[in-house]
Parts: sequence; C-alpha cells; structure tokens
Amino acid sequence: MELELLNLLLVLVAAWIGGSLATRLGYPSILGELTAGIIFGPALLGILAPTETTAVLAEIGVLLMMLYIGMEIDFRELGKASKAGLLAAIGGFLVPFVLGYYAVLGFGGSQMGALFVAIAVGVTSLATKSRILVDLKLLNTRIAHVLMAGALISDTLALIIFAGIISFADAGSIELTEILMVTGKAVLFFVVTGLLGIYVLPFLGKKLEKAGFTNRTLYFTIMLIIAIGFAELAELAGLHSILGAFIAGLFLRESVFDRRLSKELNKVFYDISIGFLAPIFFVTAGYNVTFDVFQNNLTLLLVILAVAVLGKVFGTALFYLPSGNGWREGITVGTGMNGRGAVEIVIAGIALNMGFIDNEIFSILVFMAIFTTATVPVFLTWTTSWLRKRGELVLSSSEKQGVLILGAGPLSLYIAKKLSGKNPVSLIDSNADNCARATNMGLRCIQGNALKEETIIEAEGHEAGFFVSLTNNSEINVLAAQLASEVIGIPNIYVSITPSSEGANIELLEPIGASTIFAKKTDPYKWDYKLENKDFEEISVEISEEISSRNFLKQLSGREGDVLPVFYENTDGKLHIYHYGAELEPGYKVHYIK
Amino acid sequence: MELELLNLLLVLVAAWIGGSLATRLGYPSILGELTAGIIFGPALLGILAPTETTAVLAEIGVLLMMLYIGMEIDFRELGKASKAGLLAAIGGFLVPFVLGYYAVLGFGGSQMGALFVAIAVGVTSLATKSRILVDLKLLNTRIAHVLMAGALISDTLALIIFAGIISFADAGSIELTEILMVTGKAVLFFVVTGLLGIYVLPFLGKKLEKAGFTNRTLYFTIMLIIAIGFAELAELAGLHSILGAFIAGLFLRESVFDRRLSKELNKVFYDISIGFLAPIFFVTAGYNVTFDVFQNNLTLLLVILAVAVLGKVFGTALFYLPSGNGWREGITVGTGMNGRGAVEIVIAGIALNMGFIDNEIFSILVFMAIFTTATVPVFLTWTTSWLRKRGELVLSSSEKQGVLILGAGPLSLYIAKKLSGKNPVSLIDSNADNCARATNMGLRCIQGNALKEETIIEAEGHEAGFFVSLTNNSEINVLAAQLASEVIGIPNIYVSITPSSEGANIELLEPIGASTIFAKKTDPYKWDYKLENKDFEEISVEISEEISSRNFLKQLSGREGDVLPVFYENTDGKLHIYHYGAELEPGYKVHYIK
Repeated sequence: MELELLNLLLVLVAAWIGGSLATRLGYPSILGELTAGIIFGPALLGILAPTETTAVLAEIGVLLMMLYIGMEIDFRELGKASKAGLLAAIGGFLVPFVLGYYAVLGFGGSQMGALFVAIAVGVTSLATKSRILVDLKLLNTRIAHVLMAGALISDTLALIIFAGIISFADAGSIELTEILMVTGKAVLFFVVTGLLGIYVLPFLGKKLEKAGFTNRTLYFTIMLIIAIGFAELAELAGLHSILGAFIAGLFLRESVFDRRLSKELNKVFYDISIGFLAPIFFVTAGYNVTFDVFQNNLTLLLVILAVAVLGKVFGTALFYLPSGNGWREGITVGTGMNGRGAVEIVIAGIALNMGFIDNEIFSILVFMAIFTTATVPVFLTWTTSWLRKRGELVLSSSEKQGVLILGAGPLSLYIAKKLSGKNPVSLIDSNADNCARATNMGLRCIQGNALKEETIIEAEGHEAGFFVSLTNNSEINVLAAQLASEVIGIPNIYVSITPSSEGANIELLEPIGASTIFAKKTDPYKWDYKLENKDFEEISVEISEEISSRNFLKQLSGREGDVLPVFYENTDGKLHIYHYGAELEPGYKVHYIK
Repeated sequence: MELELLNLLLVLVAAWIGGSLATRLGYPSILGELTAGIIFGPALLGILAPTETTAVLAEIGVLLMMLYIGMEIDFRELGKASKAGLLAAIGGFLVPFVLGYYAVLGFGGSQMGALFVAIAVGVTSLATKSRILVDLKLLNTRIAHVLMAGALISDTLALIIFAGIISFADAGSIELTEILMVTGKAVLFFVVTGLLGIYVLPFLGKKLEKAGFTNRTLYFTIMLIIAIGFAELAELAGLHSILGAFIAGLFLRESVFDRRLSKELNKVFYDISIGFLAPIFFVTAGYNVTFDVFQNNLTLLLVILAVAVLGKVFGTALFYLPSGNGWREGITVGTGMNGRGAVEIVIAGIALNMGFIDNEIFSILVFMAIFTTATVPVFLTWTTSWLRKRGELVLSSSEKQGVLILGAGPLSLYIAKKLSGKNPVSLIDSNADNCARATNMGLRCIQGNALKEETIIEAEGHEAGFFVSLTNNSEINVLAAQLASEVIGIPNIYVSITPSSEGANIELLEPIGASTIFAKKTDPYKWDYKLENKDFEEISVEISEEISSRNFLKQLSGREGDVLPVFYENTDGKLHIYHYGAELEPGYKVHYIK
C-alpha cells in the first residue's frame, strides 16, 4: 500500500495553521482544526479528501486522545468535587440531553439518532476553559472550580451513557434477556477494568520498579498496550473502544508507575495525540460537514442550537439552585460550560460512522460545537462582569491553598505567620532548632531534607498550591523547586536566589516554570537578621495603575532604598506572595518591609 | 472504517514479547520482532494477519524511524570519521553489493531484483552494535570507533544508492534524456533539502526562539511537518520518502531548535518510533516470509547467506588494508559489521511492495538478516578474543577523551595534572585566583559560572567525554551535572557529594545517569587541605579479583582507614577517574591518596 503522503502533509499543515490561529484568538485549537477541515475539505475548497492513511491515524489519534484525557482526570479531585460541581454537571448534561432528544424526535428523526444528538448537546468541553479563565482572571474564583469539576463529571457521564447506548444499539433488540446480557457485559467491563486498574496495574508497576526497569520507552510501550487492551475489552463488552482507552487513562494517571516517568510519559502522550494524531481526526471530521443543511434543515439547526445553548445554560442554573450559590452564579457557570469540544466531535463522528445520524445531522452538531465554543468567551465575559459588578464573584475556597515553605528562618516564619490565617502552611527545614521554633509559633514544620521526595510528600506537598524555596542556599532552592515542580507537580513555585550566588541563576527557573520570589535576587540572610532583631518596619502602599511586580519594585526601591516587598493584596483582601511576573492592578496593596 | 483493534493489540504484544526476549539475550529487539511476525503470522501459526491499520501504522513507523536514525547521526562525527571507518564502510558495502548482484543474476533473477538484493546484503546495521560492544568490553577500542563510523557511512551510502535505484526504476527507460531528467531531479532534491536544512530551518528556529515560543508540542508538530515535507519532496524527486525523512533527521538533529527541547523531542521520536510504530513494521514484515524457500530456493538462500557473510567480512578486511591497522583487525571489523538491521528490512520491504522481488527472495533477505545479526556476537567474540590474545586490541584514540572539571581547587588540580598527559583537560571555576593558579600550572581554566550554558560551551563541553563536578557545594555540583548531561550531552558524569550535605543527595544523580566520584560521599575541602599542605601519600594497589569500585573502597577503608581512591588504571595503563559503578578487573591498579 502507498501512503498518501502529500495528503497527510497537507492535513497536518492545515491542522497546524487552523489550530495556531484559533489559539492565538484565544480559542481551543480544535475549533481551528475543524474549520480547516471544513474549508479545505470537500465541503468548500476540495483540496483535502479522505484517505485510508488519515482515517487510520485519526482513529488511533482519538484513542490516544481519550487515553490522555483520562490521564488528566484526577480521581481524588473528582471524589472531592464540590456538591455544586456535581449539580452543575448533572443539570448541564441532563436538561439539554432531554430537550435534544425530543427535538430530534419531533423533527422525525430516529430514536438512535435522537439519543446521539442528545449526548452531543449534553457534553461539556474540558479543553476550552482554562485559557478563557486565565484571560478573564477567574482562575481563583469558585466559578472556575465548579466549571472544572462540572466538565470532568459531565464528560465522564457522557462517555458512560454513550457507551451504554452503543452497546444497546449493537444488541438491536429489546428482549429482556438481551437487555440483561448487554447490561451484564457492561457491568462486567467496569468490574474487570476496575480490578485491573486498582490491583493488577499497581502490582505490575511495583514489580517492574523492583526489577529495576527504568527504561522510559519500555513503560511507554506497556502503557500503549494497556490502553489498547482496555479499548479491546470495551469492545468485547459491547461498549466502544474510546471508553476503554479513557478508563485506562484514569488508572495510568500517575500512581501505577514511577512518578517521574509517568509525568514524562503524560507529556509524550500529549505530544502524540494533541500534537500529531488528534488534529488529523478533527480536520477529517470537518470533511463530513455539508452546507446543504442551511437549505434543507435550517430550522432543525436553529432548534438544536437553541436547545444546546439554552438547555445548557438554564439547565445548569436550574440544577445549581440547591447549591445555595444563587441563580446568577448558576447562569454564569452555565455560560462557562456551554462549549462543546473534543468529546462531542468524537461521539458525533462515531454516530456518523455507525450510520445512526446522517451528514446533515453531523454537520448540525459540528456547527453547534463551533458556535457554542466560539461564544463561550463572549457570554462568559458578560456574565462574569455582571457578577463582578454586583460583587457576587466569590473566590474559591477549594483551590489548593496550601503553602509549603522550604527553610524555617525568620523571613520564612514571618511569611508563614502572615499567611497561616487563611492558608494551610507547612515548613520544611533540616535544622531541628528552626523547626522547633516554628512549631512553638503554632506552625507545622517537617524536619528533613527537602531534596528527598519523601520529605515533600510528608509535608503534604500534594495538597500545596504554592511552593516557596527560601533557604540561604540558592542551589538547594533550585533543586527543591525542580522536585516540587517535576515530581510533585505543585503549580506555583517561588524561588529565592541570592545576589551573591555564583552558581544558581534565574535561567535555571525557566524550564520548571518557577519565578523569583520578591521579584528580584534577594539575600534572605540579611532580612532574617533584621527580622530577628526586630529592626524593620512594615509598610503598605496602594497601587494606582496597572504595573508589573518587577517595575513596581524598581520604582519603590528608587524612592525608598532597600526594601523587601513580601505580599501583594488584591481587592478582595487576599494576600499573595510577591514574585516576579505578577501583575499588580489599581486598588491592590503591596506590603513591604524596610 | 473499523480499527482492527484486537489485531493491533496482538501485534503490539507480540512485538513487545519478541523484542524483550531478544534484548534480554543481547540481540537487537528487531530480531525478536521479525521472529514474532514469522511465528505468529501467516508463515507459521497464522494468528496474526495483515490489516489496513497495521499497514498504515507500519509505514508511518518506518518514516519516523528513519527520521530518528537521521537525528542520531552527527554530521560533525561523520566528517571526522577516520579514514579507517570510511574504508571499512566502502569495502563492507561494495564487495557484498557486487557479489550479491551477480549471484542473483546468475540464478536468473531480474536486474532490479538483483540490485535490491545487492543493497540488502551491503547494508550494515547500526542498532545491533552498541549493546554487543558493551558486553564484549570493546567500547573504548579503536574497533568500536571504526564500527560506529563504518555503519553510519554505509547506511547513508545504502540509502542514497537505494533512492537512486528507485528513481531509475520509476523512470523505467534508459533513454539519455530520461536518465538526465532522473539524475537532475535527484540532484535538485539534495540541493533543495540542503538549502532548507542549512539556511531555512536554522533561520526558522531562531525566529521561533525570538518570538518566545517554548511550547514543546508546537516544536514536535513542526518537526513532524518538516519530516513529512522532506519525505514528500523526495517522492516528488522520484526518490523514496524514507530518504527524505532520513535527511530531515540529519538536519533536525539539534542545531535547529532550542537545545534542551531538541533533546527532549529526540526522545519522544524514539518513544513513538521504536516504542510503538516501528515494531509494528517489523512484525508485519515477518508476515511476508515463506518457508517454501527452503524447498524451492535453498541453494539461492545459501549462496546469498555466503555472499552476505563472506562478502561483508572479507570485503571489509580487504578495503581495510590501506588503513595500516592490519588484516586481523579488518576481519574483526568485518564480523562486527556483519549484522543487518532496520534499514535492510525496510529496503527489502519496499522492494517487495514495489514488486521488484517476490516473497521468496524477501524471505531469503529476512532469514539472512536474522542469521547475520544473530551471529554477530558469536563471530565478534571469536575475533576479538583472537585479537586480544595476540595483544592487538588497540584502544581508541578518537573517542571523546576531553575531561571538564568544575572547580579548580587543589584536588581538582591534582586530578587535572595527572590526566593532562593523555587527555585534554579543562577546568571551570568562578574564582579568578583558582583559575590563575590552574593557568600557571599549564592547565586550561575558564573563569565563569558553570550553571550557565555559555560557560560550559566556552570550556568546550561538547568535546568532553567526561564531566567532573568537584566544588565544595554539592548542590552546584548536581545542577552543573544536570546541565552537562541534559543540555550539553556529555556522556560520563561524576559528581562529588559531601557527606555533610543536607541538601543534594545521591538520588538526584540517577535521573541524569551520573555517578558519585570516588564511589562515596566525599568532602573535597578536607582533601584540598591535605593536598595544599602536601600532607598526603600516593599509593597504588593492584586488583586481584573482579570487584566493584564501591566494594573495593569498603575493603580498602577497612584496612587503611580514611583514603581517597582517585584513579584506577586498566591493564593498558590508561587512567580512569574512580567512581561509583566502575567494575575493577584483575590486573587493574587503583591509585589512592591517604
């Protein structure tokens, strides 16, 4: 067989251009990939056409993408998902699901077609959001947390219901014995994969680790085999392979194999799926779109769009009421969950392949995905500014607020004490006296070597959202930051580098995404000394215009000489550690010592 | 279309089991993968059969593998390849090529078939060797260096000749204008890809870096697009796509994009090709093998085997004569180059697909690959022990012998002075006095911060085979070792960790493959002091039985108290830095200070 290389090349280039443009405009790349498929594919220009090669790669891409999506979901997070998130997920799924189902039936569609459309309008996209949340400065709000949890639960729900429908569709009859068989097989699948995931895989992981296997490629191959094995199990159970790959991802997350390797391989699976194969799927999905739908089925298109948007937004808001967070927040969450994404297109594509929906319905679903995803930023901007104006934008209480400080010198204790009112703070120091002092102040201190994984785990690094390296040894600070970032995965990392350091330098922080605490090289020892001798004053100053932490510090030092900005306080009164790269806005306060 | 998931799963599992068994036995995994394909495929058990899915994945796998093989070849190394390596490569390719060609013609084969068989018997496998060289303790011999260079050159040669043959085969006529056209297109291909590789890609790389793109997945996608683009260019020029991918690999090696990212992505391409897609190719290649050949064409099989083995071994030896290294070394190099591997199977598979050879000839080539590869360790053991007994096993002079020492304290200077007779030694120290002292002793010293890439590059870290971190600050030592390993790629890294270090620990060395210098935690400061005050004695002791460096040190300390083993000297009188994980053999000497 001949590879259709030119076609593959063009598909990859189209995906890349489309995806890059979309992300540049603040949208998920899938939007650009789909659009590229529509524009360059048979629907419009006809430059691209389906080939066997892209078909195979697209299918493998979907499997690997589902594996990756599964890997991204943290069981523990799901377990801890707030009641609010659960309510939003259920409402946001169920209401458009029911409305969508009856809408299609009302237009004379088949029952199976109606069910697939129903799932498609019910799904919520995961990938769409994080970028938008950053742009709208929502990351630390309760809404963001509800959105995350809601999307995760709703995707999981959608996949399970989808698999159930597929399995009944295959059975094709509604005899009781048949239904029992189908249900039994599905249950068996969850039991078997559950047992494999909970007992066998960790056992296998431990055995391999004991046997001293550290070859990354070996683990990569094993993970692939497990993913495809689970996918095959799902098919054997009459479910769809993507559910199997997804569940394999849930289990392969990180606990099975060595933590560092798992993190690395997560990235490899991301590269392969999101950087190579999945875009092929989305471009080729665009091929199946037809514009005929605007002539033949415009009413249905509009109805499904309405059902998708209104059902999602008001369904979410309705079910969100019992959370007690207010209907306005419910509507905001609804607008945030209104995007569709990868999972919807995957499900629609499968339905098309299996003949449950035709090209026109498929096109409607694609246009619906594009429209709803494209409008998320717009609607979400409206609703959040509405909340903001009413002062109802509540900050999250469930984001990881834990602060882990390395080094328990006077400066660390000063910071810890200030934060400990609102954040769970832990300290690590190898010096017993320092730790004892921290404990006497009512702070939690672990005595140990922060460059050992065990110490950070003992200090509950997994629960920490912030890691501060504040010893007098810049190199220890950098090495600990590496561990905290790469092995433990703490998201925000602030590192102290002394100006006299002839070793560690700021360049070393970039690969791990850490930033310099105090927004400049600082000698903690000097400030330790001042704090120890109570030779300092605390001053606060309000920010009058938007400015970066680095520039503000320059201005401040210009005026005041040698100062140390320790915190900035946003308009809600929340204290943040002052660090390089922070953006200060009017109304923020900076707390510094002198 | 439906993915043949179960089949894919079985192929992956078969490849994995076959590959693991082979590597466990000391053979390249491709041998196990081919055999698995023969055993489980149509030839024997018939459990596996060709599917569209595996066909597509195998083809993509071959492209990505050729890309990876290209990435592994260092232009500069090729340029520096010794005359001996070039001679071995030419002889080892040409002689079996000519013999193979006439053998097939003699048996009534077609001209094209004969040409393809000729290339197949001429090829030398790259992957087969490194492991065997380690097992036979040949890594530091001249033979190893000749083998490496020889295989690289011979593979490159084979690919180019192969592409040329393909392009003439496609033309299908021998009119002069046709031949000129074909040649012109091929030359144009090399010119265009050369210009792209030398000018456009580095320009693109710099632009992306300036624009601040650090997203690894983006670079991954771009590299894929470049590889497939080059492959398509090759096809347009009438050459084969694998040559394009290979050449893309040559250029994408490391100079185009950010060094750290390139290193990471090389690994990702390795994971995808060697850990996923290429094994699918080798298993499915095994499907095409037929055992009929033993009945119908046994003579031809034996003749080709003989041509392959004898032509390769004696051809290499013959052309090797002008190197002046002796005919016995030539024969040893010949036995080392006698393996066939990935490239041969790829070329044979293409010939089969294009109809130039039939299943029987293909089977002969596969059996030949298996036989020659499987016998490399056997023959090479014979020939090297023959050389060893005669005392003709010459150590390599062209391996990277440079030693880069971080820290120019008395202990560093002591080590540098001892090594500087045979190795080019450089030191790095941030302290100007230390550096001046080193310079006064006639040593090269760079004053600067070793945690900056520039400093290591200025100290010619690229030329170094050994990196020794020997400052009193264990954390600086570890961070510098990371840089030397991950960014610069120095192969042997020895790090000093002080026993009092409450930070850096030995666990941190494992992920970068570094080992502890002196085979124990050591305080350089203490020994600096003794050396400074000439308060030490130098003692040598001969090893009587095989022992690890760690255990020997334990014995030695038990007898002698506090000692510092600095070097071990092998039987050829070469000094090695004493480090954790070294294996000491009878006759070695350990030099320690007390």
